[in-house]
Amino acid sequence: MNLKIAVLSGDGVGPEVILQAKKALYAVGVVYEHDFIFEDALVGAIAIDKAGSPLPEQTLNLCLNTDAVLLGAIGDPKYDTDSNAKVRPEQGLLRLRKELGLYANIRPLKPFKSLVDVSPLKREIVEGVDFIIYRELTAGLYFGEKKINESGTIASDLCEYTEGEISKIAHLAFKSAQNRRKKVTLVDMANVLETSRLWRNVVKKIGADYPDVTLDFLYADNAAKQIISNPKQFDVILTENLFGDILSDEASVITGSIGVLPSASLGEKNALFEPVHGSYPHAKGRNIANPFAAILSAAMLLEHFGLNEEAKKVYEGVEKAIEYNVVTIDLNPDSKFGTNEVGEFVSNFI
Amino acid sequence: MNLKIAVLSGDGVGPEVILQAKKALYAVGVVYEHDFIFEDALVGAIAIDKAGSPLPEQTLNLCLNTDAVLLGAIGDPKYDTDSNAKVRPEQGLLRLRKELGLYANIRPLKPFKSLVDVSPLKREIVEGVDFIIYRELTAGLYFGEKKINESGTIASDLCEYTEGEISKIAHLAFKSAQNRRKKVTLVDMANVLETSRLWRNVVKKIGADYPDVTLDFLYADNAAKQIISNPKQFDVILTENLFGDILSDEASVITGSIGVLPSASLGEKNALFEPVHGSYPHAKGRNIANPFAAILSAAMLLEHFGLNEEAKKVYEGVEKAIEYNVVTIDLNPDSKFGTNEVGEFVSNFI
Ligand SMILES: CC(C)[C@H](C(=O)O)[C@@H](O)C(=O)O
Ligand SMILES: CC(C)[C@H](C(=O)O)[C@@H](O)C(=O)O
Repeated sequence: MNLKIAVLSGDGVGPEVILQAKKALYAVGVVYEHDFIFEDALVGAIAIDKAGSPLPEQTLNLCLNTDAVLLGAIGDPKYDTDSNAKVRPEQGLLRLRKELGLYANIRPLKPFKSLVDVSPLKREIVEGVDFIIYRELTAGLYFGEKKINESGTIASDLCEYTEGEISKIAHLAFKSAQNRRKKVTLVDMANVLETSRLWRNVVKKIGADYPDVTLDFLYADNAAKQIISNPKQFDVILTENLFGDILSDEASVITGSIGVLPSASLGEKNALFEPVHGSYPHAKGRNIANPFAAILSAAMLLEHFGLNEEAKKVYEGVEKAIEYNVVTIDLNPDSKFGTNEVGEFVSNFI
Repeated sequence: MNLKIAVLSGDGVGPEVILQAKKALYAVGVVYEHDFIFEDALVGAIAIDKAGSPLPEQTLNLCLNTDAVLLGAIGDPKYDTDSNAKVRPEQGLLRLRKELGLYANIRPLKPFKSLVDVSPLKREIVEGVDFIIYRELTAGLYFGEKKINESGTIASDLCEYTEGEISKIAHLAFKSAQNRRKKVTLVDMANVLETSRLWRNVVKKIGADYPDVTLDFLYADNAAKQIISNPKQFDVILTENLFGDILSDEASVITGSIGVLPSASLGEKNALFEPVHGSYPHAKGRNIANPFAAILSAAMLLEHFGLNEEAKKVYEGVEKAIEYNVVTIDLNPDSKFGTNEVGEFVSNFI
């Protein structure tokens, strides 16, 4: 298979972990005889510094014309302290999502067996957890009209959803459930929000097309409790942008390290793969960032193109590394291995 | 002291647990020679059934003219299934908050030592946790303009904040921190939301008036992680309405049972006290609901009026009950004690 992959390493530890993901993909290409072509481009804070924009046109054009995007991380503390900065790294990511039409962010949550004890949760809560979150990614409060009055004393953000936006991702979630344990849980706030009531109506209607899938409802506040107190109950969680952001980050805690969590963001034509962990600025350049999330994101990329055997091999490489304790310090404080060594182990395994 | 207290038992297990809180307050009144006068009124689903409105005018007038409101719970499953119902129990609660101007919802989070093992989190995470959440309660997405187009295909909710709304609760949070470990953490999404940037600017400005208090910032998604992975870092969390709803429910998991968590909602002139747990419909009438949250809400009421010794006594009563294992089944699955017996133990202790 020929695949052209745009590589947007971005900020913080992005470049270090993406390098390991590339090495894994490169190894897969050699072993399974695929032609993966990587093209690098700028995004985020580094793109502001070097090209004056968090998403330069060149980067956008590249992404629009590749099969897939592999993204590292976006964000730099120097923009966080200045709440009035006009240009922010995050704008690059948000615009990229919008322009590529990446309406579904997908995060599988299935803790590695041998890592169960790393979790802040008790073993009996974590063992057997296996769910996946479908978060709507290109609408809602993130993208609605933003206002601030002249004197800077009144601000607003609009949360808006259309039936079309909801139904696209709902279909994906139901289809995913059909290949899993056949349960979709819609998380909303239908007791208070008009948009949530629309979500409920649309998702109920679509649910009728998937009679083999059970549809449940949970208010977002209750979901925030259940994800910690009883995460085993979930199979597929479907939710809007903001709830999805908060709840998927919360859920990442179950695994004990956010350093092992991959994600995929899908659109009609495009697909982007990125580790969940973000730029993790104070680990930058120290060879301590966990490369598993980036490597597993590459595995999701392979799966997306139907390369299931290849994806499985990458996954096994990560499992082996964990088994042999070839892991970064987030998983084993006494570890002598860094980002590079761990990544090397996985690509050698392939 | 003379206190006139409006008692709004509401739905589900509300009446059962509020009865125990009243018994505790009654005992305090007798022992410490205070004159507490209770007046009952309808709210929630039961108010819709009996009086056609989730907040009858009579109830509102009573609340406006009492020193404090003691509320049980609101909500009935029969309204949850119908996402198009025009009248909902929650509207009663939201309107009550708005009319009484209860702009600050306050939830202390300090697990009882002997209950640490009930938590889904590991002992080392839970031990020593002691923080308090200040959630803005009368603005934001909950109260902004809601729209749905005629064909029912596009919906929106507006999130709006003014400087005045933010500064009122910010002052409360800083004052609270001054009497604690002197740290305020503002939770927002200043990287994406205009309202969050306003929050940050206003809270920074106000922070300058409290030079002894450290001000930290955390994005809501990160906060959702930190509350579970490292809750000890927090002293006072300050946040807007929606984030506060989700995060305070999430935080309730730390204690292992939401059945022990009280809350206070304060306005300029009014104050309302209520257990965090909600109506818990399938426990209704079964004498199994945990009365501690309601009883501890009564203790917060006493504190609010400066009756600190009395509040302490109630608190000790709950601690003793836990020590003697006189608890409901949520805290001890083998318990033979019900709501009534546990409540009785506490009021006898006083
Ligand atoms: C960086 C930020 C805008 C982004 C989001 O909130 O969507 C991130 O938290 C994520 O979840 O991918
Ligand atoms: C019932 C509901 C409207 C309410 C809220 O979300 O504010 C409840 O969850 C709470 O936190 O008091």
